[in-house]
Amino acid sequence: MACATNAISLSLSSNPNSKLSSDFIPKLNKPVNVYLRASTSAELNPGRLFLSRPIGLSRRICANATPVMDRSVGERSSSVPTIVEVDLGNRSYPIYIGSGLLDQHELLQKHVHGKKVLVVTNTTIAPLYLDKVVDALIKGNPNVSVENVILPDGEKYKNMETLMKVFDKAIESRLDRRCTFVALGGGVIGDMCGFAAAAFLRGVNFIQIPTTVMAQVDSSVGGKTGINHPLGKNLIGAFYQPQCVLIDTDTLNTLPDRELASGLAEVIKYGLIRDAEFFEWQEKNMAKLMARDPDAFAYAIKRSCENKAEVVSLDEKESGLRATLNLGHTFGHAIETGFGYGEWLHGEAVAAGTVMAVDMSYRLGWIDSSIVKRVNDILQRAKLPTAPPETMTVEMFKSVMAVDKKVADGLLRLILLKGPLGNCVFTGEYDRKALDDTLSAFCKS
Amino acid sequence: MACATNAISLSLSSNPNSKLSSDFIPKLNKPVNVYLRASTSAELNPGRLFLSRPIGLSRRICANATPVMDRSVGERSSSVPTIVEVDLGNRSYPIYIGSGLLDQHELLQKHVHGKKVLVVTNTTIAPLYLDKVVDALIKGNPNVSVENVILPDGEKYKNMETLMKVFDKAIESRLDRRCTFVALGGGVIGDMCGFAAAAFLRGVNFIQIPTTVMAQVDSSVGGKTGINHPLGKNLIGAFYQPQCVLIDTDTLNTLPDRELASGLAEVIKYGLIRDAEFFEWQEKNMAKLMARDPDAFAYAIKRSCENKAEVVSLDEKESGLRATLNLGHTFGHAIETGFGYGEWLHGEAVAAGTVMAVDMSYRLGWIDSSIVKRVNDILQRAKLPTAPPETMTVEMFKSVMAVDKKVADGLLRLILLKGPLGNCVFTGEYDRKALDDTLSAFCKS
Repeated sequence: MACATNAISLSLSSNPNSKLSSDFIPKLNKPVNVYLRASTSAELNPGRLFLSRPIGLSRRICANATPVMDRSVGERSSSVPTIVEVDLGNRSYPIYIGSGLLDQHELLQKHVHGKKVLVVTNTTIAPLYLDKVVDALIKGNPNVSVENVILPDGEKYKNMETLMKVFDKAIESRLDRRCTFVALGGGVIGDMCGFAAAAFLRGVNFIQIPTTVMAQVDSSVGGKTGINHPLGKNLIGAFYQPQCVLIDTDTLNTLPDRELASGLAEVIKYGLIRDAEFFEWQEKNMAKLMARDPDAFAYAIKRSCENKAEVVSLDEKESGLRATLNLGHTFGHAIETGFGYGEWLHGEAVAAGTVMAVDMSYRLGWIDSSIVKRVNDILQRAKLPTAPPETMTVEMFKSVMAVDKKVADGLLRLILLKGPLGNCVFTGEYDRKALDDTLSAFCKS
Repeated sequence: MACATNAISLSLSSNPNSKLSSDFIPKLNKPVNVYLRASTSAELNPGRLFLSRPIGLSRRICANATPVMDRSVGERSSSVPTIVEVDLGNRSYPIYIGSGLLDQHELLQKHVHGKKVLVVTNTTIAPLYLDKVVDALIKGNPNVSVENVILPDGEKYKNMETLMKVFDKAIESRLDRRCTFVALGGGVIGDMCGFAAAAFLRGVNFIQIPTTVMAQVDSSVGGKTGINHPLGKNLIGAFYQPQCVLIDTDTLNTLPDRELASGLAEVIKYGLIRDAEFFEWQEKNMAKLMARDPDAFAYAIKRSCENKAEVVSLDEKESGLRATLNLGHTFGHAIETGFGYGEWLHGEAVAAGTVMAVDMSYRLGWIDSSIVKRVNDILQRAKLPTAPPETMTVEMFKSVMAVDKKVADGLLRLILLKGPLGNCVFTGEYDRKALDDTLSAFCKS
């Protein structure tokens, strides 16, 4: 267990029908329902930001976890969903993960409040899944009426102008405080619908139905909502939690390869910042993921959600720990803003940003070169960029990074790796020269 | 104590220098620091929405209350502020009320977080008080830098376009999560600055410095923030509490008569919905209020804030009780929206709306005719309208009221008076004919 200073807890079933191969959970020779924990990180890295979590918390978060789905993504028959709980007191909510969940109408309907629902989606997703979601909402539930608003697709539309279309539709449809907003789409839709739900009539219920890997493993969980400003990403928004997150893994069948890879950048992130064992699993299973192996994906989504749920439960409003989920994002946001919203997908920018953060960590002497190599290798295998676009300059990075949300009293704090694989720090205490050197190394001017 | 079913608690000092006339607190023959309570409302009106509050809560809310200001509004010397606490657990905050408080720099400075402050104000208030507030922020506090954004003045600018100017300025000034927003102005500025603070970087600190009676007695307290939509008032916003509310009563010296009267509509409201004793005090002291008697105003502000603080503490997110603060507002919002934002001041629309709500309550047989007369009389003495603009039609009222935030599953709930003076209900259970009759009575078509 040398690597597992941040090992997450695993709750495994003894279901004899499980198709889980031993590859999926490396080094697992323990009985079912065992919580794997390693030595406290402090022994290995006194500078680490967070402590190993107490067993009690792990148990609570994973209390409802059921086996990884053993049905193929393509099969339409419904199955018992895996449930990961986001523990936030009276704002706790479940993440349902599984194949065919949109056919399980009661799953969605039990989280709808009021008689009116507004589905917020985009021009790409509406032809694919809007009818299915409307069916799921109204079947056997004649009292509910469903409106929808179809937004243009893409990060460049994640702005106030598009957001106003959601408010316009909600008001024209005479939705009231007892209505429910449903976000059907990727991260952009989830962030905008969530912020609209937070601000409409000062807050109405909402449900996340993420349809991309990016949204399923990261953005739909944890309540960060918002829109971009021309000068920076996600600068306007709210912390606002959904009633539930419903991940029907079948929706990945229609996801373009580039979008799929983009989401893997966040999956890889969890391994790097806190779950070395998961990173090793990814190294062994990247080929399966790229081949869209449904079991591999179900596992990657579940384990990502568990990591995310645990971090969010410990630090909902990002006073410290939660910021670590932004590994590579400060550089990545600069790429998205400077290069133009939507030119690169979010995960592509995060991948290049991760390489830059890892490069800087190495320049600071905080990690050894093997980690640099492994990060580059796994991102390349996921067909993700490992350097920013050539048009990005040092000045563009600095200008956008200056308005990053992690700046505090003028000091830019970064998430950097430190120590063995799976460890990171969130800090403003680093040699400025290392940052300059990294920027120079990755930019032509 | 026949009237005082909703008597608020009074905490009075034995300060021998107090200029409080016996007129200010009618029927007060009790020793200092006594909490006045009456019979439970249930005895008088089984349909009442809320119960008399427990003594413990009253004590907590008024724990820091000090004597009503005994300095003239015009005097510049600082004085010990009256403090009313808004009790919201870890989001509790003080309301400071007094003359010359902007000269007490430490009062403001102790609530500033971070090194950067953004003062949000308007073209009317900036020439009068911006320098004074900047002084109060930076005197003896050289580490703090203060930016400002000066918005156009008026309800018609309380929209997304104007709000974006606050975000633009905040981002251009490179404010970070540790900054503080300061709202300097009336209700429009407070609502917009508060919502901007709630949404900027998903939430930064803010401080309210209300400069109108309307803002001082109502809108700056309780955390309701937001902007208007072309189809309805305050439809987009957030519940977001300030760090403190600083009411320097000297700012009323520059307030136009019409604005002053507008604020009195909310003062009168507190009497009608829950504080009959306060209403009687207003009946006796309206001439003093209209003459801008500083002691009378200090008392009216304090007692209004106590009422507001207590209601907000009991029901922050408006699940029931808090809605009663909207007496007259559903009709009033329809006037503001239908007649055109800014044509009438908010309090003017609320005054006419209150008369309509009272008329409807009478038609329902819920109050006797003496209350109808007293409401009309006191509003006329405050030089406030007692009927909507002549251009308002029944259809205009119905169309705007249909998107009111108090509609639930299609049913419009209203705040109506019921029982003796000082009692009200928040209900959707009323004879629709009474509403139709009231609208017909007040509209030509």
